[in-house]
Amino acid sequence: MPKKAVKTVKRAEAPEKTMVENVARVVIEKVSPEIDGGRFPVKRVTGEPVRVEADIFADGHDELLAFMLHRRDGDPDWTRVPMRTLGNDRWNAEFTVTGPGLYFYTVEARLDPFLTWLRDLKKRLEAGQDLRVEFMAGAGLISEAAGRAAGTAADARRLKELARDIGAGGDQREKAARLADAELMGLVSRWGDDTALVRYGRELEVTADRVKARFSTWYELFPRSVSSRPGKHGTFNDLIARLPYISEMGFDVLYLPPIHPVGTTNRKGRNNSLTAKPGEPGSPWAIGDRTGGHKAVNPELGTPEDFKKLVEAAGEHGLEIALDIALQCSPDHPWLKEHPEWFLKRPDGSLRCAENPPKKYEDIYPLDFACKDWKPLWDEVKSVFEFWAGQGVRIFRVDNPHTKPFALWEWLIRELRRENPDLIFLAEAFTRPKVMYRLAKAGFTQSYNYFPWRNSKWELETYFTELARTEPKEFLRPNLWANTPDILTEYLQFGGRPAFMVRHALAATLGASYGIYGPAFELCEREPRMPGCEDYKDSEKYELKSWPLDRKDSLKDFIGRVNRIRRENPALQSDRNLRFYRTNNEQLICYSKHEGDNLVMVIVNLDPDHKQSGLVELPLHLLGLSEDKPYQMHDLLADRHFLWRGPKNYVELDPHKLPAHIFRLRRYVRTERDFDYFL
Amino acid sequence: MPKKAVKTVKRAEAPEKTMVENVARVVIEKVSPEIDGGRFPVKRVTGEPVRVEADIFADGHDELLAFMLHRRDGDPDWTRVPMRTLGNDRWNAEFTVTGPGLYFYTVEARLDPFLTWLRDLKKRLEAGQDLRVEFMAGAGLISEAAGRAAGTAADARRLKELARDIGAGGDQREKAARLADAELMGLVSRWGDDTALVRYGRELEVTADRVKARFSTWYELFPRSVSSRPGKHGTFNDLIARLPYISEMGFDVLYLPPIHPVGTTNRKGRNNSLTAKPGEPGSPWAIGDRTGGHKAVNPELGTPEDFKKLVEAAGEHGLEIALDIALQCSPDHPWLKEHPEWFLKRPDGSLRCAENPPKKYEDIYPLDFACKDWKPLWDEVKSVFEFWAGQGVRIFRVDNPHTKPFALWEWLIRELRRENPDLIFLAEAFTRPKVMYRLAKAGFTQSYNYFPWRNSKWELETYFTELARTEPKEFLRPNLWANTPDILTEYLQFGGRPAFMVRHALAATLGASYGIYGPAFELCEREPRMPGCEDYKDSEKYELKSWPLDRKDSLKDFIGRVNRIRRENPALQSDRNLRFYRTNNEQLICYSKHEGDNLVMVIVNLDPDHKQSGLVELPLHLLGLSEDKPYQMHDLLADRHFLWRGPKNYVELDPHKLPAHIFRLRRYVRTERDFDYFL
Repeated sequence: MPKKAVKTVKRAEAPEKTMVENVARVVIEKVSPEIDGGRFPVKRVTGEPVRVEADIFADGHDELLAFMLHRRDGDPDWTRVPMRTLGNDRWNAEFTVTGPGLYFYTVEARLDPFLTWLRDLKKRLEAGQDLRVEFMAGAGLISEAAGRAAGTAADARRLKELARDIGAGGDQREKAARLADAELMGLVSRWGDDTALVRYGRELEVTADRVKARFSTWYELFPRSVSSRPGKHGTFNDLIARLPYISEMGFDVLYLPPIHPVGTTNRKGRNNSLTAKPGEPGSPWAIGDRTGGHKAVNPELGTPEDFKKLVEAAGEHGLEIALDIALQCSPDHPWLKEHPEWFLKRPDGSLRCAENPPKKYEDIYPLDFACKDWKPLWDEVKSVFEFWAGQGVRIFRVDNPHTKPFALWEWLIRELRRENPDLIFLAEAFTRPKVMYRLAKAGFTQSYNYFPWRNSKWELETYFTELARTEPKEFLRPNLWANTPDILTEYLQFGGRPAFMVRHALAATLGASYGIYGPAFELCEREPRMPGCEDYKDSEKYELKSWPLDRKDSLKDFIGRVNRIRRENPALQSDRNLRFYRTNNEQLICYSKHEGDNLVMVIVNLDPDHKQSGLVELPLHLLGLSEDKPYQMHDLLADRHFLWRGPKNYVELDPHKLPAHIFRLRRYVRTERDFDYFL
Repeated sequence: MPKKAVKTVKRAEAPEKTMVENVARVVIEKVSPEIDGGRFPVKRVTGEPVRVEADIFADGHDELLAFMLHRRDGDPDWTRVPMRTLGNDRWNAEFTVTGPGLYFYTVEARLDPFLTWLRDLKKRLEAGQDLRVEFMAGAGLISEAAGRAAGTAADARRLKELARDIGAGGDQREKAARLADAELMGLVSRWGDDTALVRYGRELEVTADRVKARFSTWYELFPRSVSSRPGKHGTFNDLIARLPYISEMGFDVLYLPPIHPVGTTNRKGRNNSLTAKPGEPGSPWAIGDRTGGHKAVNPELGTPEDFKKLVEAAGEHGLEIALDIALQCSPDHPWLKEHPEWFLKRPDGSLRCAENPPKKYEDIYPLDFACKDWKPLWDEVKSVFEFWAGQGVRIFRVDNPHTKPFALWEWLIRELRRENPDLIFLAEAFTRPKVMYRLAKAGFTQSYNYFPWRNSKWELETYFTELARTEPKEFLRPNLWANTPDILTEYLQFGGRPAFMVRHALAATLGASYGIYGPAFELCEREPRMPGCEDYKDSEKYELKSWPLDRKDSLKDFIGRVNRIRRENPALQSDRNLRFYRTNNEQLICYSKHEGDNLVMVIVNLDPDHKQSGLVELPLHLLGLSEDKPYQMHDLLADRHFLWRGPKNYVELDPHKLPAHIFRLRRYVRTERDFDYFL
C-alpha cells in the first residue's frame, strides 16, 4: 500500500446507482460498524477511535485503492484516509472523534491501473520477458496522472519526467529499479483517476458524547431525607451540606428522584398505602399540583434558586446533578386542565389512571403520546428538558421510557443534542431485551440493564459477554445498579453486608458506569416490604427517612476505595475491553479489563456466606506474560502484592473480610541486584 | 393468536417513513432471511418453504398482530399470512414457492387494542374488579370493528350483536365467558384497524429455481474423444451412442466443454505446447474461427442439427446437456474484426492476449466488458445465451465468471431468467471466497467451490458447516467436483483407486449437486503433467483420447450405486440439512442428512491407504433415538444391516474394499414375535 497523506474531498451526494447502469467493477460491502443497515448511529466518546472495516474487491486481478471518508456534522468536506488491507478482501482505517456531536463515515474504492501495471511488471521482469511495450503502457498511465496533476505544477513536472524516462529506451532492469521509489509511486497514486471511485451506498453515523457518557459513578438519593433533624423534610440546602459525604466516596453523578411538587389527590401513604396520612410526603413520581408540574420545584425542597445553588455547589465537589424525568402526572398536574386531550379517557368520561392490570397506580395518569394532537405534547415534553438544561442540568435519568413511543425518544434526544451535545440520557427501561436495545439505538446514552438479577458466574459471564462483545457494544452503554429504590434483590436481602460488597465490587468493575441508591446501600439496608418482594420496607418513596450515616458497619470507606481504584485505572473506565477467565470453582469469577499498559484483573467470591478458594487460569500468551517469568499481582483493594508464576494460581477469598481482589497486573521487566522490577 | 384465514391485500408502495413523521409505535427489524440489507435475493427451489422471521415489538404492553406478506412476481396483490410469536419478540410465518420465478415478501404489524383489552379484562376479572366501564370500552372496540365490516353484512351483524351484548348490563363473569369464543374473537381481529399497519421498509426477494438447481448429478466429457475409432475426432452422433453408458451410471446432467469452432492462429498443441502440430485439435476454450464464434458449432463435432438431435436424445436418457460459455476469443474469432473496440489494446496497437502475469494464453483474447461501448457487447453476450436456450439448452456452465464484472452477471442472469426461469447457471469461479459469494449473490444458480482441496476431516467439517449453516446457505448452492480437466488433486494422484472412491463418496453425499470429469474419473486416471502440478498428462484439452471404458477396475458400478442411493434418498438431495458427528479417529468422518423420515448417515475413511477403525458418537436425543432400544443401520452401499445400540458404536472401513458406509438409519418401532420392525 502506498503511503498517502490524508486529504479532504468535496462532499458529494452519491445515490446508490444500480450496478447495471454503470460498469463499476468495485464492490464495497459488509461495512462495519453499521447498525441495522445504517438506520442507527454507533456511539463513541471524545477521543475514542472508530475503526471502520469493509469487504472491498473487484472482478479479475486488478489492484485496488480504498479510502475511508469521515466528517463532522457541519463540515463541508470529507476527510479521506487510505485504508489498509487486512487480507481476505477486508480493509480498514480509523478516525477519532474529537468532541461531542455527530460524525459521518463511508467508504470509497477504485481500481488502480498503475499499481496493477507495476505489480505485473515485476512478475514479467522476473520471467525475463521483453517489456518494451509494457513500459510504453506504464508511461501512458503516468502521463495521465501528470495531466490530472496539472494544477499542481511541481507534481505535474515530476510525473512528466517520470513518464518520459519510463517510456524511453534503456535497460529495463534499471528502469524498473527506478520504479521502486515509494515517494514517486505514491505521487502517481495520489493523482490517480478519482472519477473512477465507487462510493458505498450509505453514509453511516456516529453519535459522540463526552467521556462521562462512558465512565460515570452514580449516587441516587432522596433529598427529602437529608435533613439533619429527623422528621423534618430535607431541602436543597441540607443537600449541599451532604455533598462532601457523597463526593468523598468518589461519586461524580448525584441523581435525584423527581424534585417537582407532589400531587395531593390520591397521594400514596407509607409503604404504598392507598391513602396518605396528613404530613406524609407522597411519591415524588406523582408529579404536579396546582402550583406547577414538570418545570416547578417542590417548595418543601426549596426554591428554584436553591436548586441552582445546589447545581453549582455540586459542581464544586466534582458532582453533576442528574434529574429524573418521569413523564406522568398526578391528578393535580396543571396539564390535566390545560390539555385534557393528552390523556386517555374511559368510556364513562373519567381519566384512565396508570395501570398494569390488575395493578393500578391511582396517584398518576399516563400521557397519551400517540394521541391525535401529539405534536404539541411532544413539543411540551421537549421544553421540559430544555428548561432544566437551562438550569445547568446536563444529565437526565428517564423514567420508564419503554412505555412511550420509540419515535418520541429518537426525535427528542436528537433535537436536544443539536443544541446541547453534552447532554446525557439514562434509560430506566427494565423490560424485554429487544425493547431495551431499541431505546439505546434511538439515542439513550446509557441504559439500566439486568445486572441486578445476574448473580451466578454463568449469568454474569453470558450477559456481560453479550454486552461487551456482540452488536449492542456499538450502541448500548450499560449502567450497572447494585440497588435502586425499587430493587432490593434477594441476593442483597439474604447475603448481608458481604453481599453488598460483592455486588458493589462487581458493579464497579464490570461496568464503566454504575450506581447505588444510598444511603440504603452503604448502610446495607435490606428489609423487604414483605417476603418474596423487591420493595424496601418503609420505603423512602413514601416517607422521610433519617439515615445513621456514621454507623460503624457502613460501606462508605470500601466504596470510596473501589471508586478511587476506578479513577486511577483507565482499564476500568471502558466496557468493551472485558474478558473472562477460567476458575475451577463456580463461586469464583475472574475477569480483566485492559487499556494500554493498564491491566486490571478482578476476582470475586460470589458466595456471600463462605470462604471460597480455587485456581484461576490465565492464558499467559494473550496477556503478554511468559511461562517462566513471575508477574506481580498488586491487590489495589487490600494493597497487598503477590508474585504469580505460570497460568494457574491459587486464590482464597473470605467474604467476611474482603470478597474481591482487584489486581493490577504488572509484567516482569528485569532483575537488578536483589530487586525485581515490574511494569 | 387468533386463527385467521389467509387473505389477500392490495399491493401498496410503502416508502420507509421517518419515525418522527408519524407516531407509529410498532417496530419491525432483523427480518430474515435478508441478504445484505435486501440488496440480493435468497434462493429456493419449487416446493421449498421460505421461513420468514422478524423482531416485532412496540413500546408499552399492548398486544400485537403481525403478518407476513408474499406474492409472486406479477401478482397484483399480496397474500397475507398471520405470523406466530416465538417468544423474545421474535415472530415467524412461512410460504412455499410454487415454481421457478421471482417472489417477494415483507412484514406488517399493528397494535391490537381489542386483544389488549381482552387480555387485561381477564386479569381484572381474576382480581375481582368492577368491570362495568371496561365492558363499555370493549363494546366500543367491537362496534368499531362492526363499522369496518359494513361491506360484509353477516360479519357486521354478528359484531354489532356482540357489542350490544358486551356493552349491556348482566353478570360480568358470564359476559367474559362468552368472550372465550375463538371464532368470534377471530372475527373482531379480522376486522381490526388495518390502516394502523406498519410495513417493514423493504420488500425482500426470492429467486426460485426448478428442483434440479438444488439436486443434480453432473458428468463432464470431451465430445472430441467419444469416437469408437481411436484417433478419429468424436462427433455428436458418437456421443449419442455414449449416452446409455453415462445414464446408467445415474447422471442427469451432461456437461460439454465449448463446442464451437477452435481457432487456428496460435493454436495450442499437445500438453499445452505453444504450437500445434497439423491435425491437433487445440483447446476448445480458444473459441472461434472464420466460420463462426460463440453461436457456431465446431464442424468436426457435427452440424447444428446434430447438436439438436443430441439434446433430444440426451433427454430421452434422462440427461440434460450443459453448455460451457467461455467469454473469450481465439485470434480468429469474427468479433475481432467486427468489434475491435471490445478488446484491450497495447500501446503499440497490438491486442492484449489473456494473461495472468507472467503466464500468457497466446491462443485467446479477453473481452473488455468495461470498455467504452460496453452495452452492445453485453447485449451480444446475452444473445449468445439466448441462442443456445433457443436450441433447447437449459443449463450453462460459465467459465471464469470472476474475471468479468459482477454487474454483467447480475443483469444478464436476471434478464435471461425473465423469459426462461428454468435456466441454471453454474459459476466456475475458483477464486477468493468473497468473490465467489458475490457471484452467487449476483445470480448464479450453482457454484464450484473449494471441495477439491478440502481433504482432512477438519477441513471438510469447517468448510461444509460454513456452506450449510451460515449466511451463504441462503444464496450459494455448492456443486462439488471430484476432479475437472484442470484439477487432478494430489490426493487423487497419490491415493490410487481408493482415493477416487473416497472423493466420489464425499462429493456425492456432502453435495446435493456434484460432478466428475469422465471417463478420466471412473478410470482413475491420475498421472500429472509434471510433479507438483494439477494438470493431467496428455490432457484431453489439447488432444483426442480413446478411453478403455470396459477396464475391470472402472468405478462405473460404484458410481452407479452411489447415484442410485442419491436418487432414492431425499435426504441426500439437499445441502442445508447437514450435520457432523464425533468420531475418535481423525481419519473417520461422520455426518448425516435428513429429510422427513429419511435419515442418511455417512461414514468415510479418509485414509486411502489403510484400514481405519474407531468409535462413532451420535447424539441419540437429537436423532430421536432412545438409549435403550436398538436402531438399524442399513448400509445402502454394501447392502448390509447392522444393529446399533447407544451413542457409541464401532466402525471399520477398508479403503481397498469399500471406504465408506452410506447408512440409512431406521428407528426401532416394535417387536412382533421374533421380528423387529424399523422405520
